[in-house]
Amino acid sequence: MRDAYHEELDALSGQLVEMTRLVGSAISRASTALLDADLVLAESVITADDAVNALRDDLDRRTFDLLARQQPVASDLRAIVTSLRMSGDLERMGDLAHHVARVARRRFPDSAVPAALRSTVLEMSQVAQRLVAKAGSVIASQDVAAALELDRDDDEMDRLHRALFTALLDPRSTYAVEEAIDITSVGRYYERFADHAVSVAGRVVYLVTGQRAEELAAP
Amino acid sequence: MRDAYHEELDALSGQLVEMTRLVGSAISRASTALLDADLVLAESVITADDAVNALRDDLDRRTFDLLARQQPVASDLRAIVTSLRMSGDLERMGDLAHHVARVARRRFPDSAVPAALRSTVLEMSQVAQRLVAKAGSVIASQDVAAALELDRDDDEMDRLHRALFTALLDPRSTYAVEEAIDITSVGRYYERFADHAVSVAGRVVYLVTGQRAEELAAP
Repeated sequence: MRDAYHEELDALSGQLVEMTRLVGSAISRASTALLDADLVLAESVITADDAVNALRDDLDRRTFDLLARQQPVASDLRAIVTSLRMSGDLERMGDLAHHVARVARRRFPDSAVPAALRSTVLEMSQVAQRLVAKAGSVIASQDVAAALELDRDDDEMDRLHRALFTALLDPRSTYAVEEAIDITSVGRYYERFADHAVSVAGRVVYLVTGQRAEELAAP
Repeated sequence: MRDAYHEELDALSGQLVEMTRLVGSAISRASTALLDADLVLAESVITADDAVNALRDDLDRRTFDLLARQQPVASDLRAIVTSLRMSGDLERMGDLAHHVARVARRRFPDSAVPAALRSTVLEMSQVAQRLVAKAGSVIASQDVAAALELDRDDDEMDRLHRALFTALLDPRSTYAVEEAIDITSVGRYYERFADHAVSVAGRVVYLVTGQRAEELAAP
């Protein structure tokens, strides 16, 4: 049977998984709001960001309490410090979903995404959702092999990000400066979102193995 | 006389101040590289980012050791957890300086900043440098009043960031899509750099007072 202390440690991990769920829902709805120029959906993402921030505050308070009361050592200490960092990554991912929703709101009733770039932005949003779902699974399972897989999805995100700029700069199309500003911003938000998901997975790798994800990744 | 333990705590703080110094130098040189299209300077910032990352790794290792060996409580525990978070902010500021330098390198031998936007970008870089210098002083002095002042500089950064977009969208000027991409990216890098400096100062406020900077800021 687990003692109260270890139950608290498990609860931290459960709360982190809950954060990935909220953030995954936020980036999914923000992306739909962006692509379909859906103002109500955009507003709902902007409002929901408070819930992510509140969850993070609560999690950080519990983490700090555990450090102060239990004086953990070795692997428990590593788990607790890691959870502080993951909550930071996840809060930031919530902020980035919020930023995507704000671009959607700013351009309503138009869509901020020109027709020719829709499929690339849609793919970026799908990779983002896949990454955050995988990050949640990895926190729960502590599966190192699965954690290392996130790098591949991130490579796909980087490829899409480059493709977005290539399309923006295609001399055969003419985009307005306003469109270029929006797409540059949105592209960056997805790319950073993905980076933080990879960072979460990398922290699980470090937690379990004591080694950096870069040292373990397949060459 | 301070014991070895408290000397180690002081050393953490000294290392954080050293990180602000490196990051301040990086954003200053990256800005000159950007505005003057100076490739050698841009390369030097890109290379120097490794030193910031190494300092952060070392600092985090020491922080973790202190947590494990000393089992600190109360205010010492708060100082140690706070230093973990500040090192994250400062590393990210180094990354952002690095990103500015990469834009400079990509556009060489041209400058990425159109003539009409130079003065705004220059001001943004000056506010960024001021913010990181103040963040360093605040880490060293733990002066809450000084820490709260960073918000005002950040307001100035937000104003400049908005002015940059207004200028980009001015119907009397015609910017190329490539220019819009670069300026949107660079504007965002400076704005995030400033946010992290404010975050560092806010962590000092929390460390000293146990209250959030937002609760203490003048109305």
